[in-house]
Amino acid sequence: MEKFEVHILGCGSALPTTRHYATSQVVNVRDKLYMIDCGEGAQLQFRRSRLKFSRLNHVFISHLHGDHCFGLLGLVSTLSLLGRTAELHIHSPHGLQESMQPMLDFYCRQMSYRLCFHPFDARQGEEELIYEDRSVTVHTIPLHHRIPCCGFLFAEKPRPNHLIRSMTDFYQVPLYLLSRIKNGEDYVTPGGEVIPNARLTQPAAPPRRYAYCSDTAYLPELSTRLQGVDLLFHEATFALGDLPRARETFHSTAGQAAQVARDARAGKLLIGHFSARYENEQVLLEEAVALFPNTQLAAEGLCVEVLKTF
Amino acid sequence: MEKFEVHILGCGSALPTTRHYATSQVVNVRDKLYMIDCGEGAQLQFRRSRLKFSRLNHVFISHLHGDHCFGLLGLVSTLSLLGRTAELHIHSPHGLQESMQPMLDFYCRQMSYRLCFHPFDARQGEEELIYEDRSVTVHTIPLHHRIPCCGFLFAEKPRPNHLIRSMTDFYQVPLYLLSRIKNGEDYVTPGGEVIPNARLTQPAAPPRRYAYCSDTAYLPELSTRLQGVDLLFHEATFALGDLPRARETFHSTAGQAAQVARDARAGKLLIGHFSARYENEQVLLEEAVALFPNTQLAAEGLCVEVLKTF
Repeated sequence: MEKFEVHILGCGSALPTTRHYATSQVVNVRDKLYMIDCGEGAQLQFRRSRLKFSRLNHVFISHLHGDHCFGLLGLVSTLSLLGRTAELHIHSPHGLQESMQPMLDFYCRQMSYRLCFHPFDARQGEEELIYEDRSVTVHTIPLHHRIPCCGFLFAEKPRPNHLIRSMTDFYQVPLYLLSRIKNGEDYVTPGGEVIPNARLTQPAAPPRRYAYCSDTAYLPELSTRLQGVDLLFHEATFALGDLPRARETFHSTAGQAAQVARDARAGKLLIGHFSARYENEQVLLEEAVALFPNTQLAAEGLCVEVLKTF
Repeated sequence: MEKFEVHILGCGSALPTTRHYATSQVVNVRDKLYMIDCGEGAQLQFRRSRLKFSRLNHVFISHLHGDHCFGLLGLVSTLSLLGRTAELHIHSPHGLQESMQPMLDFYCRQMSYRLCFHPFDARQGEEELIYEDRSVTVHTIPLHHRIPCCGFLFAEKPRPNHLIRSMTDFYQVPLYLLSRIKNGEDYVTPGGEVIPNARLTQPAAPPRRYAYCSDTAYLPELSTRLQGVDLLFHEATFALGDLPRARETFHSTAGQAAQVARDARAGKLLIGHFSARYENEQVLLEEAVALFPNTQLAAEGLCVEVLKTF
């Protein structure tokens, strides 16, 4: 199966603790790396995870709170010191470039590569396709936080069927037709016999989806939007006992995260963005597991594969 | 003896590695904390060192390269989230506030405390007294780097003598005179007898000095300036084999750092700001020790006491 996995670089919330870094993740789709959020220390954690900077071309920022983007300057600066030449693309709500530019101008005067900002409108309630390449699409997931904030839905593109070599050899299918057959056509022999596609190919693995739901108040409609998602990351800043604080700060409890996962019939739930008040997150895990058993706690250094579970 | 110690939060150079954080230190003088430089991750390392944010009121930035100040935004922002009310003072070469202000305006809109910038002129060749309180003075140490850059000399103020209680009791010295006697006066009894100060007091511990020499090319005159310093931190980015690179980038080798320590008759040398190219810093230590035996490698989490060694 093609690689599709999520590396957790940091899963704490705004206040740093001795156990957690600020928010950052890296999604690896077929060895292309996509960073989601870039809290302070993200570049260090990136190195610790033994990921390669050269494979990173896109960074997605969910919202403009410091714990989700204060690591950008260091990352951008390091890539220039390393002599990078490929463009680096930063997708974020409006305002990031304007706020960063004076520091970029001051500290990164002679950049070895081009930095491209792609602002999107995080205030609108509609999902938006903000990135697409051969293997993946990325849509925003409108969330409900104190400032405009979006999650991101990474969806693998459907892949062509796999040829069954022994069969295409047997029917002596000419090379120039193989690409069409991969894409579903039947084969007609020179004698006029129709060989159904199903005899020549095996279906590719079904495409998978990963949803990253950054800081948000409990948003029931997410479950409709993310129906059947294979892996769901949902913030779980608080435990049920701190529900008033969760409401006040537009964050979710672990139980609310699990409710979204259950209602969305997600394959698996990963929770993170833990408040500094919890000495360990077992209480959050137990709350979530009670509603949605296939829940895992995010942790620095953790790598979770996105699997088709049904 | 009064507390005077140096905590190493980070001792790597510009490129992050899995072993070192960017530059930051905390000087603890009698339980007041002074941060020197604030590379990315400094606030995390501060917490890990079990230091108290409430005791930190002054930050000194040696020069405006990212690896010495990209941690400031996170620190400033965290202190506000924690509800700090005391002012925080940032001493740095000119330009820091101008470059940071747009991000401060954007990300730290409702600060719980006042941030006070105190720019100094790092281009001039003269040392300058930039800070003073009851226990300590801080002078700049002009250095020679690619951009204006200063080290910092922390000097304890001389303390009054200690009273020998049994003697002041014996001579029935009135309470209102004790402060004068601490400061060196003799005591004249009601009968006119002069009791020499030396019989009533013991001299306080001699004041100690810590010199932090940030990024700099080898600067022989430092040894005159820092003659007899008790603890010297000197950058040692490179080993002798990389001397051309050290010259090119206005950095020092470990041997050059040791030469400054030896010529300054320093009590002890601490080296840091290690280039990412060294898998371990033993080569740097050996180079330095050959010239100046009392050398120690900086390391994250290390705490070094400033001691009077002669």
